[in-house]
Amino acid sequence: MPLAGFTAALHRWADPQHKDWFAYTMYHRAAQDAVAASLGARYGVAFQPDDILLTNGVFGGLSLLLTLLVNDGDEVIFPTPPWFFYESMTLMAGGTPVKVPLRPPRFDLDVAAIERALTARTVAVIVNSAQNPTGRVYSADTLRALGELLARRSAANGRPIYLLSDEAYSHLVFDGVKFHTPTAFYPHSFLMYTYGKTLLTPGQRLGYVAMPPTMPERQERRKLILAAQMIQGWTFPNALMQYALPDLEKQSIDVVDLQRKRDRLVGALRDMGYELGTPESTFYLLVRSPVPDDCAFCDRLAEHNVLCLPGSVFEAPGYFRVSITASHEMIERALPGFRSAR
Amino acid sequence: MPLAGFTAALHRWADPQHKDWFAYTMYHRAAQDAVAASLGARYGVAFQPDDILLTNGVFGGLSLLLTLLVNDGDEVIFPTPPWFFYESMTLMAGGTPVKVPLRPPRFDLDVAAIERALTARTVAVIVNSAQNPTGRVYSADTLRALGELLARRSAANGRPIYLLSDEAYSHLVFDGVKFHTPTAFYPHSFLMYTYGKTLLTPGQRLGYVAMPPTMPERQERRKLILAAQMIQGWTFPNALMQYALPDLEKQSIDVVDLQRKRDRLVGALRDMGYELGTPESTFYLLVRSPVPDDCAFCDRLAEHNVLCLPGSVFEAPGYFRVSITASHEMIERALPGFRSAR
Repeated sequence: MPLAGFTAALHRWADPQHKDWFAYTMYHRAAQDAVAASLGARYGVAFQPDDILLTNGVFGGLSLLLTLLVNDGDEVIFPTPPWFFYESMTLMAGGTPVKVPLRPPRFDLDVAAIERALTARTVAVIVNSAQNPTGRVYSADTLRALGELLARRSAANGRPIYLLSDEAYSHLVFDGVKFHTPTAFYPHSFLMYTYGKTLLTPGQRLGYVAMPPTMPERQERRKLILAAQMIQGWTFPNALMQYALPDLEKQSIDVVDLQRKRDRLVGALRDMGYELGTPESTFYLLVRSPVPDDCAFCDRLAEHNVLCLPGSVFEAPGYFRVSITASHEMIERALPGFRSAR
Repeated sequence: MPLAGFTAALHRWADPQHKDWFAYTMYHRAAQDAVAASLGARYGVAFQPDDILLTNGVFGGLSLLLTLLVNDGDEVIFPTPPWFFYESMTLMAGGTPVKVPLRPPRFDLDVAAIERALTARTVAVIVNSAQNPTGRVYSADTLRALGELLARRSAANGRPIYLLSDEAYSHLVFDGVKFHTPTAFYPHSFLMYTYGKTLLTPGQRLGYVAMPPTMPERQERRKLILAAQMIQGWTFPNALMQYALPDLEKQSIDVVDLQRKRDRLVGALRDMGYELGTPESTFYLLVRSPVPDDCAFCDRLAEHNVLCLPGSVFEAPGYFRVSITASHEMIERALPGFRSAR
């Protein structure tokens, strides 16, 4: 069930405190303050409240930034296997998608491959750490190398290459792995966050775009982003969700329990002979299909009442994706199916 | 204060009824059913629940439709004085804005002028009845003439000219004037509605796009709209608001009281010598500025603590806009200021 604290926050802030409680809302100051304080405590970076631009999740933040930054024919680099919507959203903004494969088996960011993919038309690089669906969290060294590369190539291009950092899973990290925000390593960065994963409530659209204090010309950018959010269709989060944000910022699903489910599934699947890495984050395991056709194998799993997503659907043919958000009971019930299908 | 029923609906639906209560939500069936039933009862048109596409208000609906329909260089006709965002949203979608003046003093729709503005590149005509800021509600005869014109010119163009009907104020009509939805008079129509005006809660984004049953190829269009709402950044209303919609559909601010405020202000301003029509809807009076420079006159009003919007801001120079959503007490307090400024 959804977190009790989440429901409590909705009730708490549903009661109007003045006549304009549900009036047009852009950025609720207390929400901006809460985010800036939280980012400061997490990353030691002094994000300013004015640079917290509230959006309808990462979905809304990415749409906003692509619309603002991309002109027809500009290239947007993103990793593959990617989140489902990077490609279609890039196309919708008039951009040209450029995919750079992550390096199996660990699916690390391939900075050298990104370097080869950069051109004079590159306007943005989308980075997703912790990465969906591979569960990889990028190291500070990797992110530093990426930042140095982008700085060098921006200078050569005579215009900035923006780093769009999709941090949807940043609060769901296992094993005490340290999450570094990529925006700490490169000035022309936008941090995109959603509360939908941390709270398992993606139907209540809430998130933000944050500009690090190193970003140049922030005052002008704030105005552009505000105007774009209006013209895109008043894409600010609902007033109620903005009021609730400071309460929600402190909440999370039980990450220790999620890690326990990960451990149970990773261990059991390996014992059965499946090949898979150990994700450091996200809701997923990425497992090698025992037969080349991952769709056929997922059909076979389905015959054993186990539902998995074939990798071919998200540019990872030969793999399938297992969700670890199911209950412990469901996971135990699924294990015999995994065994029989193999 | 916001309606007690509005707050009650938020509380009622904030409590999760199952584990997926706040999961990704597209179109909640009960909300679609409630809207279709309400439109049927109001207009005698058999809107189908599947054709009710829930959006973040008219803002979201218009952004969605312009993005879907407009290709670079396509022309979008809309009336002037217009709602603030028609022009910028048309430009954002890659379209060319074409403005057709409403005819003062009554600000009726000028079908002959629209006819002259139509070209082979016209892709859409935005109609706003009841019209913001003039308060005019268009007659069935006017809308029938518009529908016939668009049908004729669509046939000549060999592609449809879409009618985008902004009906934000359709539930706030005075004097028993009959509101006709423009979509009843022309098949290639989209009805756009928001609950933000009727409930005075624009911060809680909720509305819809509805296709009348006369619209051709509705099944294919539903799929396109669904995909566009995902790719635009998951622009479906929050789950909570969708659950609440059937309750909210029955609610409204007190229109009789709003009409009383209109009557008090219209009468008092006319007695002072101001020239103004009697709006049949909306939150506004459009008043002739006693001096040619409406900005200067609004400055003078502000010196008397009366805040009005100069018409120059919304393409109605020589006029100013008075809001009637203030309390009765505020209205009485403002009257001496209106008298002194004249």
